[in-house]
Amino acid sequence: MAQKPSTPKGTRDFNPEQVAKRNYIFNTIRNTFDTFGFQPIETPSFENSETLIGKYGDEGDRLIFKILNSGDYLAKANQQAYSEKDSNKLTSSISEKALRYDLTVPFARYVVQHQNEIEFPFKRYQIQPVWRADRPQKGRFREFYQCDADVVGSDSLWQEVEFIQLYDNVFSALKLDGITIKINNRKILSGIAEVIGASDKLIDFTVALDKLDKIGEEKVKQEMLDKGIPQSGIEKLQPLFSLSGNFESQIESLKTILSTSDEGQKGIEELSFINNAISELGLSTTKLQLDVTLARGLNYYTGAIFEVAAPENVKIGSIGGGGRYDDLTGIFGMKNMSGVGISFGLDRIYLVLEELDLFPETVSKNIEVLFINFGDKEALFSLKAIKKLRTAGINAELYPDAAKMKKQMTHADRRNIPFVVLVGEHEISSNTYTLKHMKTGMQENVTLESLISEIKKKS
Amino acid sequence: MAQKPSTPKGTRDFNPEQVAKRNYIFNTIRNTFDTFGFQPIETPSFENSETLIGKYGDEGDRLIFKILNSGDYLAKANQQAYSEKDSNKLTSSISEKALRYDLTVPFARYVVQHQNEIEFPFKRYQIQPVWRADRPQKGRFREFYQCDADVVGSDSLWQEVEFIQLYDNVFSALKLDGITIKINNRKILSGIAEVIGASDKLIDFTVALDKLDKIGEEKVKQEMLDKGIPQSGIEKLQPLFSLSGNFESQIESLKTILSTSDEGQKGIEELSFINNAISELGLSTTKLQLDVTLARGLNYYTGAIFEVAAPENVKIGSIGGGGRYDDLTGIFGMKNMSGVGISFGLDRIYLVLEELDLFPETVSKNIEVLFINFGDKEALFSLKAIKKLRTAGINAELYPDAAKMKKQMTHADRRNIPFVVLVGEHEISSNTYTLKHMKTGMQENVTLESLISEIKKKS
Repeated sequence: MAQKPSTPKGTRDFNPEQVAKRNYIFNTIRNTFDTFGFQPIETPSFENSETLIGKYGDEGDRLIFKILNSGDYLAKANQQAYSEKDSNKLTSSISEKALRYDLTVPFARYVVQHQNEIEFPFKRYQIQPVWRADRPQKGRFREFYQCDADVVGSDSLWQEVEFIQLYDNVFSALKLDGITIKINNRKILSGIAEVIGASDKLIDFTVALDKLDKIGEEKVKQEMLDKGIPQSGIEKLQPLFSLSGNFESQIESLKTILSTSDEGQKGIEELSFINNAISELGLSTTKLQLDVTLARGLNYYTGAIFEVAAPENVKIGSIGGGGRYDDLTGIFGMKNMSGVGISFGLDRIYLVLEELDLFPETVSKNIEVLFINFGDKEALFSLKAIKKLRTAGINAELYPDAAKMKKQMTHADRRNIPFVVLVGEHEISSNTYTLKHMKTGMQENVTLESLISEIKKKS
Repeated sequence: MAQKPSTPKGTRDFNPEQVAKRNYIFNTIRNTFDTFGFQPIETPSFENSETLIGKYGDEGDRLIFKILNSGDYLAKANQQAYSEKDSNKLTSSISEKALRYDLTVPFARYVVQHQNEIEFPFKRYQIQPVWRADRPQKGRFREFYQCDADVVGSDSLWQEVEFIQLYDNVFSALKLDGITIKINNRKILSGIAEVIGASDKLIDFTVALDKLDKIGEEKVKQEMLDKGIPQSGIEKLQPLFSLSGNFESQIESLKTILSTSDEGQKGIEELSFINNAISELGLSTTKLQLDVTLARGLNYYTGAIFEVAAPENVKIGSIGGGGRYDDLTGIFGMKNMSGVGISFGLDRIYLVLEELDLFPETVSKNIEVLFINFGDKEALFSLKAIKKLRTAGINAELYPDAAKMKKQMTHADRRNIPFVVLVGEHEISSNTYTLKHMKTGMQENVTLESLISEIKKKS
């Protein structure tokens, strides 16, 4: 017997219910993107290798899936690498294409390639799968969707304000209460590093600070010391550890801490601008929180840094994030393309909605009524009615075979179909339909008109 | 300067307008699938190589994109193949995964893998990209979407009837008139081959017959002779070449031609059943046509064979097809899984709609109104209004920068935004908005309420 087939490690099949739930999230996000004036683009699943390789660091390069050249690919293999059996060195000579690793680099490539057709500022969104040869683990897959929105060609802070509102709109539409949108600014972090005399150790400093939640104040201080940040500097940090209160009072404390840093002051100004605008505009269900320990993607971000935290009762980490950058397209030779972007973590949002039981019951486009098949004459009569039901917007079908009644009813039951229609000789001669409500078991004999209105009423 | 980047050969970027148009087609098909009771599934972009290799013939195997193993892939390379530099033989030892080549084999794999969770008959649809290392040419790409619906686990002919109605619904919804749904039956072709004494040459015979439209009667006959079909048999075919008239009269002729073939009679019965049902049920905009020369995918199909032809004034070949099969899952050791399926050719349907100018004007989810940015105070006032517009379902945005008015107006113009709103000091103090209709240039000063109703009226 043939072996039972399976999907590759780290990949998934999605059954109809899962597809419906995923599309519910995608469509909610997509509608909000549209409402905010973002426009969809799509790029190919694979790119020329030179577009991707070298853009994500050594570890990233390793995790990129490479596509083997077609035909006699060894004919063009690098001779030296081949004789040395050096996999790493051989790859570029037998593989010219690679699967998309994220949506940012393909977007940068798109902007450069189509710069003459694009009207800037360009607000684009992109919802497509990416692939990473990561070790699969709970909630981490080798194929997963990313969901990004970016504005390029403007450094207006109003975009940051818009993105916070956009997050608020999406999570409110998903009825997901208790979301916190955390914000920080690269300039705050640089300012602090400057003040404590650790400007040359910005990364070490922020990596340590980022752990405050997890390992606590003492261990963070120890790590900073270990990394060579002077004791005197760490003492200056003390007010930061006890930073508390609302956005405004934290800003006030920062003003004192960062009084000697121009860059820090600039960061405070930007954060204040954003916070003031959001206070004026209001948020529906989310709250905006200043988090000076937030350092996500620091190498890349130059201004605002965002991270979205799931409700506190769900332990799952961040479900979105983003930030402002100065230089999207420099890697492709196009300078000064600044922008700001955010992303949604689809798989985690799915898990949160599942855990909190927030998917609407109507999320699946399931069939609403099944016509039982008693034979060809009855089937034809049924299909004429089904045609009218469909035109009226009702999802309806005929059981394909004149199987035993019990089998057909079991089928309706297993598929959670709410209504069943029985058409026999009596119904044909009286031009009526027997409608059975599967939940209650109630049956009634109705005209086509009432059949349609009954089903529409209940669905 | 860095080289301007590009997409790999045979792949495409889609800009916002193209994405919107493609989604219009996808959504139309998807809605119809839902209405008919089909349920969506999705499978991973790549499969284990053993799932795909050997399922599409040698040519197919060649066209499958293989993914290079990660890490030191040469460590496990087949030694002999490596020393012989035999690309073909080496592949399976350095590549364990391959990109999806069609949706049928992954569907078969899905059915076998999930057979215990699936409630049969199972009506599934799947709309996902596939990849083929084909030579790219006009209208043929290396990455393209397939769009399939199948019912497995039933051999009821009512499914064929349903699929014809489904095609009719989709093309009617797309307002694409003049579509012909061609139908044939494998049993008709087998019957004819039997009658002319060419049962052992069924493939040669049907390949030749399939060319009737293109090369004409004489050349078809010559090809059959060349393939060893006896002159006496070819003479018996004569009535077939002059087969004409409507479905019913063609069926009558076939009854005579195939009177001595049981299988042929069975095929006639099936076609008649389907045609009678369709005559009773009616088609909105398409027509059903019997085409005994249709032999699409003959090796696979065992009953009905479908092909959808574009309107006659568009030269583009078939835009859909399908048929009935006996054995979807035998390749994975699960016997007797019969079914019937159809597919839609997205790229060609797109070209047809484009050529006939049938995309609705409202297909793009473009922004409906741009607020001009005169400075922070005005911007904040504007964003408060924008928030209300969005809640009212209007796609609205603020120009991010307080750039020169002319620049902002040009931006609105280039993006085809129908309305622009101007908010200056006067508007703020009177709590009004100046609405400019971009087409007419007309301006009016309105309240927020009228602003919303004006824009909703026009969009």
